[in-house]
Amino acid sequence: MTTPLRLGIAGLGTVGVGIVRIVQKHGDLLAARAGRPIEIVAVSARSKSKNRDVDLSGYAWEDDPVSLAARADIDVFVEVMGGHEGPAKDATEAAIAAGKDVVSANKALLAVHGQALAEAAEDAGRVIRFEAAVAGGIPVVKALTEGLAGNDITRVMGVMNGSCNYILTRMQDAGLSYEAVFDEANQLGYLEADPELDVGGIDAGHKLALLSSIAFGTQVDFDGVELEGIGSVTIEDINQAADMGYKIKLLGVAQLTGRGLEQRMSPCLVPDTSPLGQLEGGTNMVVLEGDAVNQIVLRGPGAGEGPTASAVMGDVMDIARGFRISTFGQPAGTLRKARPARAAVPAPYYLRMQLLDKPGALAKIAHALGEAGISIDRMRQYGHDDTSAPVLIVTHKTTRSALDEAIAAFGSTGVVAGDPVAIRIEAV
Amino acid sequence: MTTPLRLGIAGLGTVGVGIVRIVQKHGDLLAARAGRPIEIVAVSARSKSKNRDVDLSGYAWEDDPVSLAARADIDVFVEVMGGHEGPAKDATEAAIAAGKDVVSANKALLAVHGQALAEAAEDAGRVIRFEAAVAGGIPVVKALTEGLAGNDITRVMGVMNGSCNYILTRMQDAGLSYEAVFDEANQLGYLEADPELDVGGIDAGHKLALLSSIAFGTQVDFDGVELEGIGSVTIEDINQAADMGYKIKLLGVAQLTGRGLEQRMSPCLVPDTSPLGQLEGGTNMVVLEGDAVNQIVLRGPGAGEGPTASAVMGDVMDIARGFRISTFGQPAGTLRKARPARAAVPAPYYLRMQLLDKPGALAKIAHALGEAGISIDRMRQYGHDDTSAPVLIVTHKTTRSALDEAIAAFGSTGVVAGDPVAIRIEAV
Ligand SMILES: NC(=O)c1ccc[n+]([C@@H]2O[C@H](COP(=O)([O-])OP(=O)(O)OC[C@H]3O[C@@H](n4cnc5c(N)ncnc54)[C@H](OP(=O)(O)O)[C@@H]3O)[C@@H](O)[C@H]2O)c1
Ligand SMILES: NC(=O)c1ccc[n+]([C@@H]2O[C@H](COP(=O)([O-])OP(=O)(O)OC[C@H]3O[C@@H](n4cnc5c(N)ncnc54)[C@H](OP(=O)(O)O)[C@@H]3O)[C@@H](O)[C@H]2O)c1
Repeated sequence: MTTPLRLGIAGLGTVGVGIVRIVQKHGDLLAARAGRPIEIVAVSARSKSKNRDVDLSGYAWEDDPVSLAARADIDVFVEVMGGHEGPAKDATEAAIAAGKDVVSANKALLAVHGQALAEAAEDAGRVIRFEAAVAGGIPVVKALTEGLAGNDITRVMGVMNGSCNYILTRMQDAGLSYEAVFDEANQLGYLEADPELDVGGIDAGHKLALLSSIAFGTQVDFDGVELEGIGSVTIEDINQAADMGYKIKLLGVAQLTGRGLEQRMSPCLVPDTSPLGQLEGGTNMVVLEGDAVNQIVLRGPGAGEGPTASAVMGDVMDIARGFRISTFGQPAGTLRKARPARAAVPAPYYLRMQLLDKPGALAKIAHALGEAGISIDRMRQYGHDDTSAPVLIVTHKTTRSALDEAIAAFGSTGVVAGDPVAIRIEAV
Repeated sequence: MTTPLRLGIAGLGTVGVGIVRIVQKHGDLLAARAGRPIEIVAVSARSKSKNRDVDLSGYAWEDDPVSLAARADIDVFVEVMGGHEGPAKDATEAAIAAGKDVVSANKALLAVHGQALAEAAEDAGRVIRFEAAVAGGIPVVKALTEGLAGNDITRVMGVMNGSCNYILTRMQDAGLSYEAVFDEANQLGYLEADPELDVGGIDAGHKLALLSSIAFGTQVDFDGVELEGIGSVTIEDINQAADMGYKIKLLGVAQLTGRGLEQRMSPCLVPDTSPLGQLEGGTNMVVLEGDAVNQIVLRGPGAGEGPTASAVMGDVMDIARGFRISTFGQPAGTLRKARPARAAVPAPYYLRMQLLDKPGALAKIAHALGEAGISIDRMRQYGHDDTSAPVLIVTHKTTRSALDEAIAAFGSTGVVAGDPVAIRIEAV
C-alpha cells in the first residue's frame, strides 16, 4: 500500500488547524509509520478569507462541508466542526453515503446520533473513529476498545471536562466562590460559547455515553446519563471535604448492574490521595476496570490544539494502516439497547445542612436517616451563628433513593434551614 | 470473517493459564467483539501431567513448542514460556517460518532478537505483537505505536518493574534495609528465579529498549541501555531524598538527543508529588511525551495472571479483527541503527558522601565540583560521628561525565571516606 491516504478536513478551528500542522510537519514520519503518505486534499470552514496561520494554498477549498464529504478525491472525511445537528451531521452522513471513512472529534454528534451513524457506516462498509471525542489526547477509546478487548469491563470512570476540573481546583486553591471562578474561566476563554455544556456536565456526559457503549456493548444512550453539573458546588463543601481527606470532582461513572446500565456524571467526593483526587487543573483522567486487567488509569491533556489533533491523527494512521473496526467495538446491530438504571449502586454520601438551634435537632435528623435505613459514619457540627449551625454527616453506604427519602423527611422535622447538600462519595 | 481464529499456546504458567481462562470464560464476548470465534487448538508446556487448575482436555498437546508452532491447524502462535534463547526463540522462528502470526509476552526474547524476528516476520508477511511484554496490563505498546502515531516522540519514561518498586516503597514505609526487603520479596515469590533480572534492572531495561524502538524508529538496542540496578540504594538515601521532597524509583528514560539515543534504566530521584513519585508497590507507570500530545501517563498492574493475559488477548483480538502492523510500528527495514549516547542529557544530581573531620573539607569538595563546572544548589551536613560527617549535595544541572570527573577528583582531596553516592534527579 503506497497509495496516499487522502483527507478532507471540515473545520479549521483549534483542532482542524492542529491536524494541518501535524500533516505538514511530519509528512515523512507519518509515511514511514503508515507505509504510505498522508495527504490533505481539501478543506472547508465558514470563512475562506480568515487568516489561520497555516498555509492552505495546496488544498482545494469547499464552502460546503457536505460537498467536501462527497468529493471523489478523498478517502477519509475528518469532521472537526462540532455540533450535533446541522452541517456536522449532514456532512458525516454524506461522507458515509459517498463511501468515505470518517474520523470525528465530535462527541455531541456521536453521543446523540452514534447508533444511527454506526449502522449507516456498517451498511456502507466504512468506519467511524472518534478517539479525539473522548478525553482529548488520551488514547482511551483505543485502550478500551482494543487493548482491553479481552476483558469483561466492570466500571468506567473519568474526569473528562478540563474546564470543570480547572474551576473546582481553582476554587480550592484560591478559596474563591464558584461564581467568581466561573467568571474568571469564562474571561480566559476556557468555557464553551454555551458554558452549560461544560459546567452542566453535558460535554463530559457525551464522553461517558460513548465510553459506556464500548465498555458494555450497549447502544450509546446519552439520555440515560444522570447529569448533575458543578454549579451547586460551594467553596464550603470543597473545604469541608478537604478537611475529611476528600476532593470534589465532576466524575463520570458507568457501570452495568443487575438493574441495568448506570451512567452518572456528577460532582463526587474522591479520596485526595487517589489518582483522581490528585488531578489538578485542565488535565483529564480515565479509569478503566475489567475482570482480567483489574484497573488501569490514563491521564493526559483533555483538550487543546496539539493533543486533540494527536488523537485525530491516531485514528487517521489506523485507517492508513488498514485497520478497520466497528464504531463501538462490535457490529452496530449487535449492540443491545441500554436499560438505564438510575443510581442503582449504593455509596456513602456527604450531607451538609444548616440545623436550627432547637432542642433535639440532631436527634431528629439522625432519626429521619435511621427511618430510611441509613446509618451514620461520621457527624460533625462546626461553627455556629445566632440561630443555626452547619452540620456535616457522612453516611454509610446507601442508595440515592433512600437518601432522597430521608432528605424529604428532614422537611417535616422543622429543624433544617434551607436545602441540604448531598454529594456521593465514590470508591475509586 | 466468521472463520475462527485458532491459537496455539506455548507455556501454561501464570500467563498461559490466564489466557486459557479468558478464552474459556469469555467466548461469546470475544466472538461478538472480533466478529469471529477465538479458539484454542493446541497447547504445550514441559509437564503434561501437572495439574494447572484449568480444563485442557479440549486441546491437542505438544511436548515440543516448535512442533506446536508449525501445526497446520493454528493461525496464531502465542509464546508465553520465556527466555531469550532456547525453545522460546526456536519456536517463535518456527512459527514465522510456518506462516503464523505471533503474540508474545517475552520481553527478553524481543529485546535481544527483536530486529531479526521483525525482519523475518515481515519477509513472511506475518505480524509479531507483544503488548504483554511491556508493563503487563497497561496497553502502552498500543498507545505509543498507534494512539500517538501522529507525534514526534520526545521522551519515554517508566517504572516498569513492579518488584523493584515494591522493594523501594517497602524500604521507605518500613524503614528497612535493602537486604532485608530483598529477602522478604524473594520469600514472597516476588522475584524472578534469577533476581538480578529484577533488581539489576535487566527486565525493566528490556521493556525500555522495546519502547525506544517504537518511539524513535530505531532498531531495538538493549545493549545500548545504561543499566544500574537498585542494589546500591540505601535506606539512608531514601530517607534523605524523602526529606527533600523526593522519592527514589527505578526509572527508565529514553530520549533521542543530538548525540544519539539515550536509554537509561537506573535509580532516580523524582518529586514525591509527581505521578511517578506517588506510585506505590507493584504498580507500573509509563509516561509518553510527544510534540503534539505533550504528555500522557498510563498506570496499571505490571504483572500477574489476569493483567498479563489481558494484554495478550488485546493482541489476539487485534489479529482476529484483521489489524496488521509492523512489529515496531514501521517496516523493520526502515528502522535506523540506534547510536547510543550515554547520559547525554544534563540533570541535577543528588550526591551523598562521608566527609572526614578535617579543616576546609567542605571547601575542598566545593572546589572539586567547581573545577568540573558543577554548581551547587543545596548542601547539607547532618549528624556527625567522631571522625566524619555525612554530607548531602544537590547540584545544579550537569552531565554525568562532569560529575564523574568531580567524583574522581574527590579522591585526591583526602577528605572523603568511601565512595560517594550519586543519583540523578529526573525532571518528570
Ligand atoms: N478544541 C478542543 O480542544 C477539542 C477537544 C476535543 C474535541 N473537540 C471537538 O472538535 C470539534 C472542533 O472543535 P474546535 O475547538 O476546533 O472548534 P472551533 O475552534 O470552534 O472550530 C470550528 C471550525 O468549524 C468551522 N465550521 C463551523 N460551522 C461550519 C460550517 N457550517 N461549514 C464549514 N465549517 C464550519 C469553523 O469555521 P470558521 O473558522 O470559518 O468559523 C471552524 O473552523 C468539536 O466537535 C469539538 O467538540 C475539540
Ligand atoms: N508472570 C507475569 O506476570 C508476566 C508479566 C509479563 C510478561 N511475562 C512473560 O511471560 C512469559 C511467561 O511468564 P510466566 O510468568 O507465565 O512463566 P511461568 O509461570 O514460569 O510459566 C512458563 C511456562 O512455560 C513452560 N515452558 C518452559 N520451558 C518450556 C519448554 N522447553 N517447552 C514447553 N514449555 C515450556 C512451562 O512449563 P511447565 O509449567 O510444565 O514447567 C510453564 O508452563 C515470560 O516471557 C515472562 O517474562 C510474565
